[in-house]
Order: sequence, then C-alpha cells, then structure tokens
Amino acid sequence: MKKHETAKGVWPPASTPFRPDLSIDFERYIAHCRALLNDGVHGLAVLGTTSEANSLDFNERQAVLETLVASGIPAEKLLPGTGAASIGDAVRLTKHAVGLGVRGVLLLPPFYYKGVSDDGLFAFVAEVIARVNDPRLSIYLYNFPQMSALAWSPNLIEKLLKKFPETVVGLKDSSGDVAYLNTLLDRFPGFAVFPASEALLFAALKRGAAGCISATANMNAGAISKLYETWKTAGAEELNKSVTAVRLLMQKVPAVAGVKAVLADRYKTQEWARVRPPLDPLTPAQQKELLSELQKLEAGALV
Amino acid sequence: MKKHETAKGVWPPASTPFRPDLSIDFERYIAHCRALLNDGVHGLAVLGTTSEANSLDFNERQAVLETLVASGIPAEKLLPGTGAASIGDAVRLTKHAVGLGVRGVLLLPPFYYKGVSDDGLFAFVAEVIARVNDPRLSIYLYNFPQMSALAWSPNLIEKLLKKFPETVVGLKDSSGDVAYLNTLLDRFPGFAVFPASEALLFAALKRGAAGCISATANMNAGAISKLYETWKTAGAEELNKSVTAVRLLMQKVPAVAGVKAVLADRYKTQEWARVRPPLDPLTPAQQKELLSELQKLEAGALV
Repeated sequence: MKKHETAKGVWPPASTPFRPDLSIDFERYIAHCRALLNDGVHGLAVLGTTSEANSLDFNERQAVLETLVASGIPAEKLLPGTGAASIGDAVRLTKHAVGLGVRGVLLLPPFYYKGVSDDGLFAFVAEVIARVNDPRLSIYLYNFPQMSALAWSPNLIEKLLKKFPETVVGLKDSSGDVAYLNTLLDRFPGFAVFPASEALLFAALKRGAAGCISATANMNAGAISKLYETWKTAGAEELNKSVTAVRLLMQKVPAVAGVKAVLADRYKTQEWARVRPPLDPLTPAQQKELLSELQKLEAGALV
Repeated sequence: MKKHETAKGVWPPASTPFRPDLSIDFERYIAHCRALLNDGVHGLAVLGTTSEANSLDFNERQAVLETLVASGIPAEKLLPGTGAASIGDAVRLTKHAVGLGVRGVLLLPPFYYKGVSDDGLFAFVAEVIARVNDPRLSIYLYNFPQMSALAWSPNLIEKLLKKFPETVVGLKDSSGDVAYLNTLLDRFPGFAVFPASEALLFAALKRGAAGCISATANMNAGAISKLYETWKTAGAEELNKSVTAVRLLMQKVPAVAGVKAVLADRYKTQEWARVRPPLDPLTPAQQKELLSELQKLEAGALV
C-alpha cells in the first residue's frame, strides 16, 4: 500500500453515539458518518475530542476504526486521533490505524504531564515515529492547549518538519489563537494546517490553510463543505457569514454536548444526546434554547 | 479474600527505572521497592505521578503489579494508581489490581477533559465502582489539579462518602493547598487523607491525617517514616525540620527527574536518572548542584 496524499478539505470529528449502557451505538454511528460524507465532507477526523475519544477505552478506539472500514467507508477517508499519554499506547493505536490504511493520524501531545519542554515533546514524537516504523505513517499534530495544556510551538514544529518531512505533514489547531494559526500558515507553506473553527476557515484559506477539522461540521457539514469548495467565488462572503453565525451560536454551549443535542434533534432521538461521564449533556432548557436560536438562524440563512 | 484495612503511614510512589531502550528495568525496580520497605515505609503507592505511570502503557502498568506480587512483596503493601481518562480503561486497571489483592487504588479524575462538573466526576466514579463490582475495592481519590486540571471538591467528596462509604476511603492531596487539606481533615474525620508532602505531614498528623504519599519518600524514606512513627515524641519537632528542609530543597527541581537524580547517586548508576519522554532528566549541572546541596543538608541533619 502506498502512502496517501495529504488531507485537505472539511473533516468533521464525528460524534460518537452511546446506548443507555454507555456502549457505542455502532449502527447510529455508521449512519452518521455516511450522512456526513453524503453532505460533502472530504473525510472524517474520527476519534477526536468531539468524538469523546478519550472517554473510549483503547479496545473501543480500535473497534471504531475496524467497524468503519468493515462498513465500507474507505480508510483513506479516515483521520483518527491516536494520541495517548504514554508512548506505548500511542504507538499501539497508531500502528493499528496505519495498518488499516487510514489517511493519517491526529496526534495529541502526551496530555498528563504539564510544563513539558519542547525537547521532551520532540523526543515523544520521535519515539512514536521510530516504533511505528511504517513509511505509510502521516502525522497531523493536534494542538489543543485548552485540553492538553501542552502546545506544539512553531519552533518545535520547525524541528519536527526538518527531521521528519515525510511524516509530520499537518496540524489541527483547536487553540482559537489566530496569531498562532497565522504564524503556522505563513511560516510553513505546504504544511497542512486545519483550524478547528469554520469561523476562521475563510480567512485561513486565503492564507493557505488546508481546510478545517471542526466539531460543528457534525451539524453543519453541507454549508461548511460548500464554503471550502467555493471560497474563491462571489457568494463566499455571504456563505461565510452564515456558517460563522452558526458556529458562534454553538460556542455558547459546551461543544461535545451541544453538537449532540443538535444531532438528537436532527435524527429525532434523544439517544443521540447522551454523553459519557465525566461530560454532562445539555439541560433540557439549554437544548431547547439552542435549537430555537438555531432555527432562527437557519430561517434567515442562504443555505 | 477479605477487604483490607484502610492504609496509613508513609507510602512512597516508587520511582520506575528504565533501561536504555526505555523499557522498565524490573530488577532495579524490585530492589528499590524492597529497599524502601526495609527503610520502614508502610507500603508502596506504586504507579503514581512520580512513578511515571501515565508514561507507561496499560499492559506495562499491569505487568508492574504482577511482577511486584510475584517477587514476594505482599499485595496489601501496594496502593497502585489505576486512573485513566476513560471509564473502560480505569475499570480494566482497577479490576486487575483488586484481583491481585492490593490494599486499594489511587484514582485520578479523568484527566483529558477540562471544566468538568462535580456531577460529571461523580458519575465517572460511580460508573467505575459499579463496573469493578468487587466488595474488596477501596478507592483513594488522587487530587492533583496541577496535572489533572480537575480537583475533588469537598462537596463532591461528601457526596461520594455518603453514597460509597465502604469504597471511597481516602484521598491523596498533591495540590499543596493547605486550606483544602485542612478542610478535608476537619470535615471528614475517619477519611484517610494523605498530603503529598512530608513538609505538611507533622501539622497534618496533629489534625488527623493518615500519613503521607510523597515523591521524596523515594529518597528520604527512613526519616519520613520515623517522623510518622514518632510524631508525638520529644524529638519530632527537630526531625520535622530536617525532613522539611530536604523536601524544600527537592522542590527546587522537577519532581520526577529530581528524585531519580538522587537515586542515581544512591544506587551508583546513572541508569536510574533516565526518564521517559515527554519528561526530561536533570542536566548534569542541575544534578551536581542538587546533590551538593543535599550533602550539606545531610551533614547537618539529625538522622
């Protein structure tokens, strides 16, 4: 199997539905993934933060990928999170994913220890790459300091790109820090940078971004994908406004539970609203208000 | 097998030595654990933060416990960390540990997501307890907000004690927040609270603490254990001063690497100084200065 081309476009971190006993509802999950692809997304960044990947156990994370591939979704459309606090677990998950033929993997920094040095993070990534030891491996760094407390600094990225130019190919930035995002876009042309918010997508595309990996692409996949496809055309400004308005509304509630509340409405089952502890679902009042505000936005939107 | 009595005394989170290929050096590890017990500690809080537990993969964490028990160290002398970001992984590690007959387990909150509610943490613990489903289970909550970002609030602890009085039996507090520590000691008599610093031990014992679970008990086990045993006697004030001075010196360097630097000196091999990425070892200059300062302290100490 050859190495895949670097990903671009809109890759939602697909939400993971749970049954009443908190096990993964694979039937609903596959249906959701198919619906996203039908809506025009370019692939699925499964097992991300929005997917509650770190609330799944390691066997479940592997089962998710195997089930997706077995369902007929091409592995090259998958960009799973395979980060873990330990080298050994990150290697195990990454090897498994690469073995299935995924497009690449999103790698969190080891997120237990805090105040870790760039040298320490470099050594972590180098060790993961050495142990996975597979030319097909493409790593997309996952920058989310609000969760992991550790960030991929521009200097560290430069060092990684110099040492592993074939392997470290991109980055998802969930920091929301536009200065950081722009620094990466300007300093590393060809490095596939994905902001996590579609509210930043339009400006970032003009600066060379590869696309976006957005939680809310779970519930606004068509419009965001269209924005990506048509950003150079006349209607893009207007579409950007509408996409941004939805995103800003969604940012008023906790991300994981908020997306699931909307999916519960779309798929007409409260089963979809369930989250795993330690997260909480939205309260009924929060859910009601969110859906009502969303309806108002959609009534006025172009898409 | 009956349920063990609640732990008390000095329980070091034993450091984990690594070979050049970063695998666990079990021979040195067992020798260190035996040395600590010979020095008078009351048990071993293995697989803690100082042990780099979250840099071990899940199979290694189980292998550590199995190897310790096979080496003849009584399981009731072990209080391993079994926390994980997901319920499933925490349950797997906890079941395994309880099955081996350990004294109890130290449970971190699920440390990936941030801004989690007390209700979410309660649901996490309740789910772990329900799934482990073993009357022998004793949980010691592990409070280390500097690493996990989540804390066990007094109100949450009260709720857990009310619902699981037989299972949630203690807490290790690594926060260094004396007001929090005192609140727990005053509000929950009988709840086994262990400060993580021996510098807080003497005052905490007067207030009803169960002992301490301290990183630096890896390198000052005898004196700290003696302080615990003799805190009501005449020489305790003086001993407390000396123990505290060592602790404050050690706090000048990163904890995990600092303890290992001292062990490298004690055991006369730099092999002991090795840490796993993402952590860094002390620089040679840091190590030299630390050892020199430590020597000065020990030259003037009573013990």
